[in-house]
Amino acid sequence: MRTQVAIVGAGPAGLMLSHLLAQAGIASIVLESRTRQAIEETIRAGVLEQGTVDVMRELGLADRMEQIGERHAGIEFRFRSRGHRIPLRDLTNGKEVTIYAQHEVIKDLVAARLAQGGEIAFGVSGVQLHDVDSARPRVTFRRSPDGPEEEIACDFIAGCDGFHGPSRQSIPTSLRREYHKTFPMGWLGILVEAPPSSAELIYCNHDRGFALVSTRSPEVQRMYIQVDAADDIANWSDDRIWTELRTRLATDDGWAPIEGPIIQKSIVGMRSFVCSPMRFGRLFLAGDAAHIVPPTGAKGLNLAVSDARVLAAAIVEFYRQNKTDLLYRYSQICLRRVWKAERFSNAMTQMLHRFPEHTPFEREIQLAELDYVTSSPHGLATIAENYVGLPIEWNA
Amino acid sequence: MRTQVAIVGAGPAGLMLSHLLAQAGIASIVLESRTRQAIEETIRAGVLEQGTVDVMRELGLADRMEQIGERHAGIEFRFRSRGHRIPLRDLTNGKEVTIYAQHEVIKDLVAARLAQGGEIAFGVSGVQLHDVDSARPRVTFRRSPDGPEEEIACDFIAGCDGFHGPSRQSIPTSLRREYHKTFPMGWLGILVEAPPSSAELIYCNHDRGFALVSTRSPEVQRMYIQVDAADDIANWSDDRIWTELRTRLATDDGWAPIEGPIIQKSIVGMRSFVCSPMRFGRLFLAGDAAHIVPPTGAKGLNLAVSDARVLAAAIVEFYRQNKTDLLYRYSQICLRRVWKAERFSNAMTQMLHRFPEHTPFEREIQLAELDYVTSSPHGLATIAENYVGLPIEWNA
Repeated sequence: MRTQVAIVGAGPAGLMLSHLLAQAGIASIVLESRTRQAIEETIRAGVLEQGTVDVMRELGLADRMEQIGERHAGIEFRFRSRGHRIPLRDLTNGKEVTIYAQHEVIKDLVAARLAQGGEIAFGVSGVQLHDVDSARPRVTFRRSPDGPEEEIACDFIAGCDGFHGPSRQSIPTSLRREYHKTFPMGWLGILVEAPPSSAELIYCNHDRGFALVSTRSPEVQRMYIQVDAADDIANWSDDRIWTELRTRLATDDGWAPIEGPIIQKSIVGMRSFVCSPMRFGRLFLAGDAAHIVPPTGAKGLNLAVSDARVLAAAIVEFYRQNKTDLLYRYSQICLRRVWKAERFSNAMTQMLHRFPEHTPFEREIQLAELDYVTSSPHGLATIAENYVGLPIEWNA
Repeated sequence: MRTQVAIVGAGPAGLMLSHLLAQAGIASIVLESRTRQAIEETIRAGVLEQGTVDVMRELGLADRMEQIGERHAGIEFRFRSRGHRIPLRDLTNGKEVTIYAQHEVIKDLVAARLAQGGEIAFGVSGVQLHDVDSARPRVTFRRSPDGPEEEIACDFIAGCDGFHGPSRQSIPTSLRREYHKTFPMGWLGILVEAPPSSAELIYCNHDRGFALVSTRSPEVQRMYIQVDAADDIANWSDDRIWTELRTRLATDDGWAPIEGPIIQKSIVGMRSFVCSPMRFGRLFLAGDAAHIVPPTGAKGLNLAVSDARVLAAAIVEFYRQNKTDLLYRYSQICLRRVWKAERFSNAMTQMLHRFPEHTPFEREIQLAELDYVTSSPHGLATIAENYVGLPIEWNA
């Protein structure tokens, strides 16, 4: 088999890349180790930056998003029992975020790509990358564990296979540096059968820890509370969860969450990861294969999409104009934005959570930070512009 | 003896308060344990916020400041061997900072106060505060160690006697909370006989540590480098200091400091401190008696002046309108601004220094922070508005 771009992984980065390339008439094949059903049913939250929404629209993939997704013009920071709205739209010349779950994005991208005749091989195994540092890279795989080994010869390989995928391992350890941070807390997330408690997301810093009120649909709410990273979900009865949510989110004017049956609950860890560089020869990493952010900034999906945008532009430039400039600068362009998103995610995490090691001085500094960013127009604007998504700096 | 306001300490807070009160026709006596010569000759750097400069002008004390001081419309952040100017004036509707050493401010305030017939008792000892929680507080002291004890009966006591002064101790420990942070580094500061290396201040983050190029006069430069807090100045030959300054401050386009004889060198520690509340009965703390900041934000002197402004307004309101509203809210108004200044000083310190405990991830986050604040107009504006001084929030 031969194609122009072999894409390893059918997550947001890989699927978006296949669409952007197809739009420019460039052929790709997507290899995905999981089944279509599995990737479409893995429930993931989704706060889409304005730039992500714009790409969905440009690709003609926005119908369901416009229908089911919710456009939010603001978010709230809540601390010392008072809410402070951050008017995203007003502070960013009209940009907003759209609440639309990642698995819904995946469904849209898969359905549209297959309808266009695009090739996505689901449930493949034994994916291996070969000769990535040559002009003729190859990917081998099997369509089923017992099936024959097949080979894709290609011009470029996009490693969009997540943190645990094989792509990143094809960059020699001597040439790649990995940066890690593990936070000492986790998020206990719940899905609740109840209408939204709030029209906009609420990020709450309370003496007992962080809480987040998000939305999923008119009938189902998504909420989170900070817990110890090593905590066990078995320790958290529904009653205990509601007590924490009510306590942390309480305001002086009597705000309370709308309660209902908890239909799902789980604890996820929080960590940061960056791999540098993101390119080796003809292999380009994109999305979680190259970087992980804690969920506080809602940046994971959006970084995957901006990586795909940069990579697509670089590949299109190569085929159309025979230029390699963007290809060579891919890693630099992406990493500048990635590090700014890591910074924002880290700052949001630092600002909104309780840290066991914080001294009383550091706790007051944290509250002063919240006071500053919510009382200064420039402070508000820094939160807003990062939350709706910083621009890609093509001249990075 | 009787006066309206007994002021303990002839630093910036106490002297400024005595002037602001005198302007409103309110009597005060200032008690200072050191000699006039000692307080006028203790060399301290000084970056005056716009608000501090404005008060000096309103009081008619700005002649020497206008003559000797330097108005700076910008500062530079330097990292990864490149400079990034922060145009303070452009970003803050015309506000600037004025480089004018603290001891020059002291000289101006002392000379003018004495010329007006104001009473400043220098070299006093054994200062004690009495009945501060009553309507008739008193201060006792001796004009010389062997002299008789004298007493000032007053309506209010202003505790402007610095971190080590007796005033703060008059607030019962059960009612006061103290917040501390000690940073793991110090500043090695030098005075150099050479013309300025830069027209504006340069705050530099380098792999080897922080460096700061400041100014003192057309003939004398002030520069600093980060060293270990426990380091001994004896370990630092002039050659070693210049090597560090050249290395840390080097840019891709060949910038180098102008060298000359080092006429003074010393190492100072860096710490933060806040006392809350700042009022107890008729005792009001102002300046270093209530809060210390690390020098990175250049906020110490300016916080002393803004405390004095709030306290003067509260006392004037009391005598003129028989209202106690501002007196009761003094601590709250001051502390909101103090914590924001502590936050800024902390953030500047975190952003610009090397921390021994930083992981490679945290080092990259620090550089991404510098990249963000120098590349986003809103990021630049947050630095600028804090550096020239946030407004006093009278409704805090």
